[in-house]
Amino acid sequence: MNDNVLMDMALDLAVQGRGYTSPNPLVGAVVVNNGVVVGKGFHEAAGQNHAEVNALNDAGDRAKGATLYVTLEPCNHFGRTPPCTQSIIKAGIKRVVVAMKDPNPDVKGGGNDYLRSHGIEVTESVGEKRARKINEAFIKYIQTQRPFVTLKCASTLDGRIAARTGDAKWITGERSREYVHHLRHAVDAIMVGIGTVKADNPSLTTRLKDVHTKDPLRIVLDTKLLIDTNARVFQLKSDVPTIIVAGDSVSVTKKKCIEQKGAQVLCVPLKDKQIDLNALMKRLGAMGVTSLLIEGGSRVVASALAANVVDKAIFFFAPKISGGDDGIPICKGPGPDLIRDCILLDNITTRQFDNDVMIQGYIKK
Amino acid sequence: MNDNVLMDMALDLAVQGRGYTSPNPLVGAVVVNNGVVVGKGFHEAAGQNHAEVNALNDAGDRAKGATLYVTLEPCNHFGRTPPCTQSIIKAGIKRVVVAMKDPNPDVKGGGNDYLRSHGIEVTESVGEKRARKINEAFIKYIQTQRPFVTLKCASTLDGRIAARTGDAKWITGERSREYVHHLRHAVDAIMVGIGTVKADNPSLTTRLKDVHTKDPLRIVLDTKLLIDTNARVFQLKSDVPTIIVAGDSVSVTKKKCIEQKGAQVLCVPLKDKQIDLNALMKRLGAMGVTSLLIEGGSRVVASALAANVVDKAIFFFAPKISGGDDGIPICKGPGPDLIRDCILLDNITTRQFDNDVMIQGYIKK
Repeated sequence: MNDNVLMDMALDLAVQGRGYTSPNPLVGAVVVNNGVVVGKGFHEAAGQNHAEVNALNDAGDRAKGATLYVTLEPCNHFGRTPPCTQSIIKAGIKRVVVAMKDPNPDVKGGGNDYLRSHGIEVTESVGEKRARKINEAFIKYIQTQRPFVTLKCASTLDGRIAARTGDAKWITGERSREYVHHLRHAVDAIMVGIGTVKADNPSLTTRLKDVHTKDPLRIVLDTKLLIDTNARVFQLKSDVPTIIVAGDSVSVTKKKCIEQKGAQVLCVPLKDKQIDLNALMKRLGAMGVTSLLIEGGSRVVASALAANVVDKAIFFFAPKISGGDDGIPICKGPGPDLIRDCILLDNITTRQFDNDVMIQGYIKK
Repeated sequence: MNDNVLMDMALDLAVQGRGYTSPNPLVGAVVVNNGVVVGKGFHEAAGQNHAEVNALNDAGDRAKGATLYVTLEPCNHFGRTPPCTQSIIKAGIKRVVVAMKDPNPDVKGGGNDYLRSHGIEVTESVGEKRARKINEAFIKYIQTQRPFVTLKCASTLDGRIAARTGDAKWITGERSREYVHHLRHAVDAIMVGIGTVKADNPSLTTRLKDVHTKDPLRIVLDTKLLIDTNARVFQLKSDVPTIIVAGDSVSVTKKKCIEQKGAQVLCVPLKDKQIDLNALMKRLGAMGVTSLLIEGGSRVVASALAANVVDKAIFFFAPKISGGDDGIPICKGPGPDLIRDCILLDNITTRQFDNDVMIQGYIKK
């Protein structure tokens, strides 16, 4: 087994932590002695052991003289846990293979150099592309202090997210909808507009069979604080609160009423009479939200794109055609005069869920 | 090499005739003697030799005692050429492997039975799925006397085929647009609405590098005969005419004027003030049009879907988002009240052309 195969194994371990490690990255590690895998580990949840420590513990004495594969440069500083570089040296590891360097611009003198200065051979950038992808949210957050924003739409092939009556049950099939719950499970927060709450009254929780899921923060954009206090988002048994984002001049009575329901009201300055989404992203970042999934509707999707806060867009196309233009469109608002002024995406990939097609891409900045 | 591999070779030969054989099907044939391919052939163009004859000629004496792989049941009747069954028997073929039976409901006592009655072993249904797919247009036409209709749209990911100004240059990239020329090359006719002619003034010809292309008939739906007589479709050097489809009470003067330009005017009854597309399909079928590609715009696409004349739909999604709802939608007109009343598609497949995604499916009837 070569370095790439073993790093892939470490990356497979890393993603097992998805949904539990925020604000930390996903990290996996494998210890290999004389061609035999003797230890495996991953960062299972924030506050718990780092991946390297789990893998070294798993290997025990067999770590002596072994090679450690780790998907992120080992930390060299005291955080909630002691530096991994110390544990690696203490375990007698001879060589360390790292997928990507620590992306935190504030970390001076990384773990790789420290390990080298202690006589350990370090190989960098093995499996780096995949390592960057699985931690795309962490990387953006650590470098900008703003959440990585993913937009998700589900529509007919002719671009309608609901019929003219507002009916949207169901555009996509079961397997796509299950995948969306995996997306929710992976993020810190999920956001919709007040229009979606009024139309669909969603619970915005994560529901997956056989998976201990973690609900993301539920965020509702509601400039004028018009939300019905009986909305489902106020009646949940969930470990995390619902946050209503309103403009800065809303009714104090209504605000109190919502807070009494156990929800929070976050007042954010307006820009062109709408919530200033850049200001909101800054606030969410400061609150420790590293990743955000925007699930619609048309106005919120269009506003988020216009404010240039979106990093990644995911479109689900169901095998259906509405055949008209009176259904609810994917985006509501003014578009460009010319096609060349459209918002561009890159790195397009597709995936099929039965007859639903998912198209995913990254917004060109 | 087993039967499936050899039939695949015959199918690969068959598709080389694409664009030239209408109203005949695509057919390929391979002659195999003692495990060695000794003859290959395909139906190259309407009026020319059938595939079996080309393959047998290619094999010469080596056809004696050999196996013939042919993608469609050999004909047993005199058409423009003598029956292939005779040539097969005369050549001394011992075994015939056939992908699919003759789909023509009028053919009584097919070639397979005739060959069997002459002591030749016949194996049926090898590679049948692909054989049916490459001849999907022929099969529909021979069974219904109506063209197989493919709908093609190219839009942004949020479902806009043009910006609000009508600008549509270019939604999709070069490789997708080249593929559309292959689609045009494969069909007998291509149809757009008068709106598209007014907005884009297209030439609707087939342009492919390094391929001797055949232009499809150009059909413009123009109920009130409003087309500008200087439109590009009247100024082409093309082997086939442009046909303007109008209602049955249009100006005789305008009709004559268009005919003087070398185009034809086809008057078709109206239904709900629009061209009755079912009546038109019947007329086109009677004219020998076996396949039709509808290329838009929004009204024609919606009308064709509403009239239930579409067999297959092809959506190209460019890696672009308009971000608004003022651009031109994929379909224009009334949609359903409920999502469950959408037009449904089946057998969805995808293909990527650089960052453009093509989603293709068949309309459920």
